[in-house]
Amino acid sequence: MVKKENNRLDDFRKARAEGNEKVMEANHLGLKRFFNLDTNAYKDGALPGKTKELLGLTASAVLRCNDCIDYHLEQCTKAGYTKKEIVDAMNVALVVGGSIVIPHLRHAMETLELLDQEGSLKEKG
Amino acid sequence: MVKKENNRLDDFRKARAEGNEKVMEANHLGLKRFFNLDTNAYKDGALPGKTKELLGLTASAVLRCNDCIDYHLEQCTKAGYTKKEIVDAMNVALVVGGSIVIPHLRHAMETLELLDQEGSLKEKG
Amino acid sequence: MVKKENNRLDDFRKARAEGNEKVMEANHLGLKRFFNLDTNAYKDGALPGKTKELLGLTASAVLRCNDCIDYHLEQCTKAGYTKKEIVDAMNVALVVGGSIVIPHLRHAMETLELLDQEGSLKEKG
Amino acid sequence: MVKKENNRLDDFRKARAEGNEKVMEANHLGLKRFFNLDTNAYKDGALPGKTKELLGLTASAVLRCNDCIDYHLEQCTKAGYTKKEIVDAMNVALVVGGSIVIPHLRHAMETLELLDQEGSLKEKG
Amino acid sequence: MVKKENNRLDDFRKARAEGNEKVMEANHLGLKRFFNLDTNAYKDGALPGKTKELLGLTASAVLRCNDCIDYHLEQCTKAGYTKKEIVDAMNVALVVGGSIVIPHLRHAMETLELLDQEGSLKEKG
Amino acid sequence: MVKKENNRLDDFRKARAEGNEKVMEANHLGLKRFFNLDTNAYKDGALPGKTKELLGLTASAVLRCNDCIDYHLEQCTKAGYTKKEIVDAMNVALVVGGSIVIPHLRHAMETLELLDQEGSLKEKG
Repeated sequence: MVKKENNRLDDFRKARAEGNEKVMEANHLGLKRFFNLDTNAYKDGALPGKTKELLGLTASAVLRCNDCIDYHLEQCTKAGYTKKEIVDAMNVALVVGGSIVIPHLRHAMETLELLDQEGSLKEKG
Repeated sequence: MVKKENNRLDDFRKARAEGNEKVMEANHLGLKRFFNLDTNAYKDGALPGKTKELLGLTASAVLRCNDCIDYHLEQCTKAGYTKKEIVDAMNVALVVGGSIVIPHLRHAMETLELLDQEGSLKEKG
Repeated sequence: MVKKENNRLDDFRKARAEGNEKVMEANHLGLKRFFNLDTNAYKDGALPGKTKELLGLTASAVLRCNDCIDYHLEQCTKAGYTKKEIVDAMNVALVVGGSIVIPHLRHAMETLELLDQEGSLKEKG
Repeated sequence: MVKKENNRLDDFRKARAEGNEKVMEANHLGLKRFFNLDTNAYKDGALPGKTKELLGLTASAVLRCNDCIDYHLEQCTKAGYTKKEIVDAMNVALVVGGSIVIPHLRHAMETLELLDQEGSLKEKG
Repeated sequence: MVKKENNRLDDFRKARAEGNEKVMEANHLGLKRFFNLDTNAYKDGALPGKTKELLGLTASAVLRCNDCIDYHLEQCTKAGYTKKEIVDAMNVALVVGGSIVIPHLRHAMETLELLDQEGSLKEKG
Repeated sequence: MVKKENNRLDDFRKARAEGNEKVMEANHLGLKRFFNLDTNAYKDGALPGKTKELLGLTASAVLRCNDCIDYHLEQCTKAGYTKKEIVDAMNVALVVGGSIVIPHLRHAMETLELLDQEGSLKEKG
């Protein structure tokens, strides 16, 4: 039971949305175009969007960014990955990035638990 | 209105000052000389100190260090940069460093808002 | 025509094999186990090995390691990815990692051309 | 006196233990083996374990991971290093890694103070 | 006299142009848009393009990418910076990024010498 | 037998010395002081200089800089470390930094072989 912790994920979503809004309000064409490019990178293309979400998660893990990990974990669960699949991707990130990734692995495990409590993890793995 | 958040910037300044004091108290000649070198790097030289503060901000952003970003944002506003100029520098950091910089861009936007509320951002941009 | 360049890929394979042999000859149990763990991370598991090769490529690209990129490009072409799919994965790496990834993107494009000349890229994309 | 801060170190230990447990519960052979390899890397070998703890601390500092720094500071104090020796290692990390390491140096100094308050720093340096 | 070395800079320009062409030939909309965004980031905006070239150089130096450093050194000399100004920017990069930047500082010094031999460094500094 | 390769280490030493000379000729007080600080960081202090050379090697390996690795390998062999001890330190770097360190581990193994051929590795390990 990490019920009170659930606020951590809700707080992140709220802060992320507010922060992105502030970035948009700065009204810089380059920033706006980058955000657009970022969104488009995960849409279906030569590779399915679902596969690219997993690439985004692994890249975020080896670059050690918790906010990026949380965002991509949410996208990966929406795309239908099971916990076992996500953990297998995190194992690649751990091997590539080393033990310095472990604190982010712990963070990801907690986020997965929070997503599961919300019912966002479709299939238990 | 992010008034209560203002504590975030005040807390940072206090923690930074206390932490630097603890570093000095360790009384290691190498650490002291490094801190001195760090201070001198941003003084007027072949390039004006003002320009070098912007270099410090961009370097901090691509290396993804929020404390360093906050410190250099404060120095940049003291040096007289407008919000529009700072945002334009952050755009270079975003393009060079990629979407992994976005959480730090959001952080910087909030810090700029806090600096503006304090009246530290001289000119609105 | 980059025929003479073909040596670059052959040289890499030879140097990589010789280097790995020297690592094994050092006869350190930790190093041997790590190499074993590394090999196993890309085998079929909760995720297919094919998917994990693409994760390895993307992680290598955002961490900016040309040798790792070349190795995973070779594995990805063996696993059956088309050029278009590999380029789509590299686009995710570029967006996540920023323009600092571009020299490695250029390197990857040349490697793909060399792999194609060898007949290793099964389907043209 | 940073007595209330003492919770920071206790909270870290508790969160670290719980997080590691969640990682183990994911029941992925690769993750388990990596954790095992990580533990073994710091045991007596050609180099004494004590020396390797200091290598772990310095690596954590230049890679800028506070959780890793806290863990290795605790291990280094258990291994018998004095504050002066730890600070001398952190100076190498600062010179190699640059001013971007300074926020982590401040963090380490506070952790050392907390460890000293607990009586974990055997010899004052 | 490093006349024969001059090939290094010429070779880089040629390889860079050819590599960028191969990237464009891959015909991926995301890659094309990113390259466009990258070019635009250094055009006059709230900050002059000249200032942003120096930001690009410093970001490239702390992220330790020789190809990016060479490209931005060339752009900085075209924009009219003197050697003394460029060296002052590299000093900020060294302090922020640490001794791990030194091999790239040596590389930059050689590139500056090559640019000077070509007559590209307008004013000696 | 990698006799012809011996040029690689000799070339590195020559290029490093020439590059450092060019940095000194730029006559920037900050750069000179940084180089001085860098030299002093590895002198006997609270920790013996010998221990700090090993810290420098490990930091260079996790930050993935071949020139820095070669320099510190040479310093470590001068300080009297055996091959087995150096390999044990590299194992810590591999575990902390992950498989992305492997190309640098291969490089280090070759450098150690070159140092051994020169008779610089005092004790075979």
